[in-house]
Amino acid sequence: AALPPACPRHLLPLSLGLFQGALLLFFALFVTYDKPSVQTEDANLVANQLHGIFPLFQDIQVMLVVGLGLLLMFLPRYGLSAVTHNFLLLNFSTQWALVLQGLLHHFQRGQVHLNLHNLLTAEFAAVTVLISVGAVLGRTSPCQLLVVAACEVPIYLASEWALVTHLGVLDVGGTITIHVFSCYFGLGVSKALFGMARRPVHPKEIPTPRSDLLSLMGTLILWVFWPSFVAVLCQPGDAQHRAILNTFLAMSAGALTTVVASSLLARDGKLSPGHVQNGSLAGGVAIGAVADMAMLPVAALALGSLSAVACILGFRFLTPLLARKLVLQDQCGIHNVHGLPGILGAMASAVAILVASKDTSGSRFSQVSPVGVNASEAAGGQWGDRGAGRQALYQVAGLAVAIGGSLLAGLLAGTALRLPCLARPPERLCFDDTLYFKVQDQAESPGLGSAAEEGALALKERV
Amino acid sequence: AALPPACPRHLLPLSLGLFQGALLLFFALFVTYDKPSVQTEDANLVANQLHGIFPLFQDIQVMLVVGLGLLLMFLPRYGLSAVTHNFLLLNFSTQWALVLQGLLHHFQRGQVHLNLHNLLTAEFAAVTVLISVGAVLGRTSPCQLLVVAACEVPIYLASEWALVTHLGVLDVGGTITIHVFSCYFGLGVSKALFGMARRPVHPKEIPTPRSDLLSLMGTLILWVFWPSFVAVLCQPGDAQHRAILNTFLAMSAGALTTVVASSLLARDGKLSPGHVQNGSLAGGVAIGAVADMAMLPVAALALGSLSAVACILGFRFLTPLLARKLVLQDQCGIHNVHGLPGILGAMASAVAILVASKDTSGSRFSQVSPVGVNASEAAGGQWGDRGAGRQALYQVAGLAVAIGGSLLAGLLAGTALRLPCLARPPERLCFDDTLYFKVQDQAESPGLGSAAEEGALALKERV
Amino acid sequence: AALPPACPRHLLPLSLGLFQGALLLFFALFVTYDKPSVQTEDANLVANQLHGIFPLFQDIQVMLVVGLGLLLMFLPRYGLSAVTHNFLLLNFSTQWALVLQGLLHHFQRGQVHLNLHNLLTAEFAAVTVLISVGAVLGRTSPCQLLVVAACEVPIYLASEWALVTHLGVLDVGGTITIHVFSCYFGLGVSKALFGMARRPVHPKEIPTPRSDLLSLMGTLILWVFWPSFVAVLCQPGDAQHRAILNTFLAMSAGALTTVVASSLLARDGKLSPGHVQNGSLAGGVAIGAVADMAMLPVAALALGSLSAVACILGFRFLTPLLARKLVLQDQCGIHNVHGLPGILGAMASAVAILVASKDTSGSRFSQVSPVGVNASEAAGGQWGDRGAGRQALYQVAGLAVAIGGSLLAGLLAGTALRLPCLARPPERLCFDDTLYFKVQDQAESPGLGSAAEEGALALKERV
Repeated sequence: AALPPACPRHLLPLSLGLFQGALLLFFALFVTYDKPSVQTEDANLVANQLHGIFPLFQDIQVMLVVGLGLLLMFLPRYGLSAVTHNFLLLNFSTQWALVLQGLLHHFQRGQVHLNLHNLLTAEFAAVTVLISVGAVLGRTSPCQLLVVAACEVPIYLASEWALVTHLGVLDVGGTITIHVFSCYFGLGVSKALFGMARRPVHPKEIPTPRSDLLSLMGTLILWVFWPSFVAVLCQPGDAQHRAILNTFLAMSAGALTTVVASSLLARDGKLSPGHVQNGSLAGGVAIGAVADMAMLPVAALALGSLSAVACILGFRFLTPLLARKLVLQDQCGIHNVHGLPGILGAMASAVAILVASKDTSGSRFSQVSPVGVNASEAAGGQWGDRGAGRQALYQVAGLAVAIGGSLLAGLLAGTALRLPCLARPPERLCFDDTLYFKVQDQAESPGLGSAAEEGALALKERV
Repeated sequence: AALPPACPRHLLPLSLGLFQGALLLFFALFVTYDKPSVQTEDANLVANQLHGIFPLFQDIQVMLVVGLGLLLMFLPRYGLSAVTHNFLLLNFSTQWALVLQGLLHHFQRGQVHLNLHNLLTAEFAAVTVLISVGAVLGRTSPCQLLVVAACEVPIYLASEWALVTHLGVLDVGGTITIHVFSCYFGLGVSKALFGMARRPVHPKEIPTPRSDLLSLMGTLILWVFWPSFVAVLCQPGDAQHRAILNTFLAMSAGALTTVVASSLLARDGKLSPGHVQNGSLAGGVAIGAVADMAMLPVAALALGSLSAVACILGFRFLTPLLARKLVLQDQCGIHNVHGLPGILGAMASAVAILVASKDTSGSRFSQVSPVGVNASEAAGGQWGDRGAGRQALYQVAGLAVAIGGSLLAGLLAGTALRLPCLARPPERLCFDDTLYFKVQDQAESPGLGSAAEEGALALKERV
Repeated sequence: AALPPACPRHLLPLSLGLFQGALLLFFALFVTYDKPSVQTEDANLVANQLHGIFPLFQDIQVMLVVGLGLLLMFLPRYGLSAVTHNFLLLNFSTQWALVLQGLLHHFQRGQVHLNLHNLLTAEFAAVTVLISVGAVLGRTSPCQLLVVAACEVPIYLASEWALVTHLGVLDVGGTITIHVFSCYFGLGVSKALFGMARRPVHPKEIPTPRSDLLSLMGTLILWVFWPSFVAVLCQPGDAQHRAILNTFLAMSAGALTTVVASSLLARDGKLSPGHVQNGSLAGGVAIGAVADMAMLPVAALALGSLSAVACILGFRFLTPLLARKLVLQDQCGIHNVHGLPGILGAMASAVAILVASKDTSGSRFSQVSPVGVNASEAAGGQWGDRGAGRQALYQVAGLAVAIGGSLLAGLLAGTALRLPCLARPPERLCFDDTLYFKVQDQAESPGLGSAAEEGALALKERV
């Protein structure tokens, strides 16, 4: 009856409460809204910009809150916890990122002006946390998750500054800055937290058909809205249009290829629900770095297919290998969904830059060349006089920095999670909502009755 | 086998059919569309306005049909009924509001011109019905619910006219006119309908982990789209932008504070699913009255947190107290979600008006003051030469009128529900889909078999 | 343990893989993006158009991927397969349609320029496949479904060309070209595939309360976003506004009328979940052909109600009759949802054209007449100097062509499905995820344990 608490009973609410207080103080002192426009024309412009960005913002909110929440429901007894922790981390990390952004970027100019664009970049910081904790889902307490968030957000902001502002890495959809970064951060955390202890498969971590179904719905919601995520920060107009189309093509090709790969790898040709849930999203991860670049639609299709193959192969071969050789736990397979496709996408961005520059310089009749005009525009507008070769190099260097930095930071953060005051949930209570929620224990009363609908069905079949 | 019908078998379809006939007649006689624009410029304007409002309209539709439907699924055996009744009431009430709006507001000018804006205001009338019936969910027949809707819509329209048009209450997000109004109307109905009869807890009204999970998904959908609900009728541009940001901040702070409060109130630190489902939305209820006003972002955060605290305290202390002292039934806890945060929001709007006016008159360098420009704009644009003190008073007076009027009207409407022809469902068939739907009775065959997925899991654990 | 594969184990992935290869080749050779705008004004125009269409595109994606997926979950043990096959078919058919569209329409002009508009029309082709396969859901292998898609997409494109481009049929929402076409195509496939073999009711095709609930959520998602589907290809501005309103009215009236009709037809007044799931959508099917026409709002209401009645009567009387007399299988009742309302809608479009033309010519004071201006605009703008009578005739002729052509084509396609290499799943494994997915067999271990939440509830009631 009396369950040992995962972390001291009131550590979570007290620390969250303290954070809320500090947030209020920070906002009271420093944050205000943009001044309203005085001219009618400006007001119309604001209205138009809002109409352009707000629907995409809402799409992204649906992805993070509903889509990701459902995706995590593959653990049959951990649904309430997975969804609530995801929701909690999203809000905490966004607020924390707003504070840090305010301090870092805007402070030199006095008042911090809050607008939808700030909010979006703060949410992107939160996304990295939501991805990273996938590696340790179910075996960590909410206190530990908050510590991960507290560490990861500032490191993400620093890494994003280093990569995008300093190195000039092109990555409109966050392939390198968000997906690769958060993947290796999460793996670092997992490694440092769990060390070399091998754990047998926990009975509660096996998905049921029903939990797989809910998780699949989450995948579909993410799949549908992914173009909004990639395109939201693009230049409105042609670049945004291209980013939407490229993302759609990559996701669509990735979805088909996932079925092909998963089916070919199985001896009986049956699909694995986990493959469909994850592989369908790989294309979206990879396309982020090149979505608005000058490239042919076929490149988006090919990248989507390749990423899906990499993801499925990762699930089939790499994850077991890493678990065996490195004793690396990756509960949600984030390395396959975010890591491998992210690396592919980063490589693709280097290639796309080189190809686009050749197309431009090589053909005098650039309008005849299928990528001609785009390429020249991109060449002129995006990496200026740096030269395509150098920009391509910077993309690869950015990837290396993201992997190395995040892995190191994740290892450090994971070590912090071993602090005694942040006790992990005991093994037998992992993956179980009853540890965090006042609900009936679903396993307490076996044999008492039944879900009649299923029972009746089973009966009919035997009759 | 033969269940006693909750209301005479065909009373519901016959009365609905009659209503549909009357609706057709009314539309045939009086309703038309706006004339199409002749000038290209006007046509572009129409297109732009439509692009601005339609995505928000769709968001609100998702909230009312999908989000609210899921939220009501916390009753494990009443899902089909809860969702279908919600859907039915939404459509009936919207159509009924369109008729009444046509008669009341537009009739003097001849033809009634239907457009998306009319539709939205009619849907807002329907929202009050959907909220109110939460107090009596599961123990009322669809006939009774229709009577509630038939009564509440005209009273809402009258109250909205009195508060907004006559008193000039500022309430862009419907905190007072929708949430407070519908809450006390619903409580009045519940009190008049159930009288002083105490009812023991019905076994079917206890949520299961699975029904709690679906309900939580409903909360998250409502949470995500709430900014659209608050901002849809704002002035496009800066005011709408501010309303979206304020709502986001309030909802985000409310979500975190809900976890803090729910956890602190529990002896073992565990969260109550009902708290998370409801508390996360309290911030959105409260922010409606002030969302587009000139105030600092910190005010939105503080209001969101306070509302969540009020909501959780309400669930923990006030609801049991009201049930004990006043024998008041409130099935969904609408008093905690819509009543208390609504009152807080109304009070906040009075304070915000007073503060904004002081800021404007007190500082000559209004651009330096964080709220300076907004405030002066608001002071000039919103309550004109009435004076801030008086406007603040009107906000509080509006709150009092909304509470008093709706409670009285609700009591009267609830009395009408006791008409013998509207027989309530018998107690043992409450909270049960089998009364209204042709489905297998889930409780008929206990022990026959099992949901093998859960069973196998339970077995594994014992082994 | 070893289940007989429905089609040779790796036929599906290999053929899909081949298709992906061909797609890549086609895209590499022929497809590019629109050239970016050079002028700032053009860029603004592109941005504005994108803001106008993209949210509707996303709505439609949600409908097809999430809404339709959930709707198909009424089969309690076939959820994963239904959703995944739906997702697979959507992607395959869209890509296939992009290829064919490229070859057919755009090829003459050299490079194929991909944009969001192409993508939408390709998705509309995919919609016909998703509808058609509803007739044979659960008894067909994915290989067979792919063959259906491979056949149906080119036939749809040809039919759409014949109806819209050649005959000039007006059908902005796809009532005739999409819904009627796909319905009779699907029925043809079903007839040719299953022949005269009568099949008893399969125990696994009976919905459970839980599967009905998920299916109902799918209905609601489709219901909410239907206006986006109908209006997305309308002329921006007034016509689109009218299409949205008309669709809303038809869906709203259809929802209420469904409840009326389903309840009146049942002896005990209870609703049938299947009726609510399907009838609520009938209005949206019917309104497509007239949504942007000059007509009064009352016509949309009446059409929505009539369609719902036709749909419910179809489920109650026509489907059993067709099953008895013609041995026609229609698993999802597509004839009731898409066929009958589609025919009604086509008829309504003819009537609307005649009425509108009379109004215009009959009244010199057309601004006084409620439909006056719309009608004249429509009369002038839409069917030009063809004459209303003739246009009305063409609408009916288009309907006849759509029914006849699709039925014939469907019969041929269905015959192809009987190829021995496309073996159907064995009867006892129909409607079962275990045939296509690596999941626990839900029926393997009855009696072992139970879903405790349900069991405890059942116990409480007996106590």
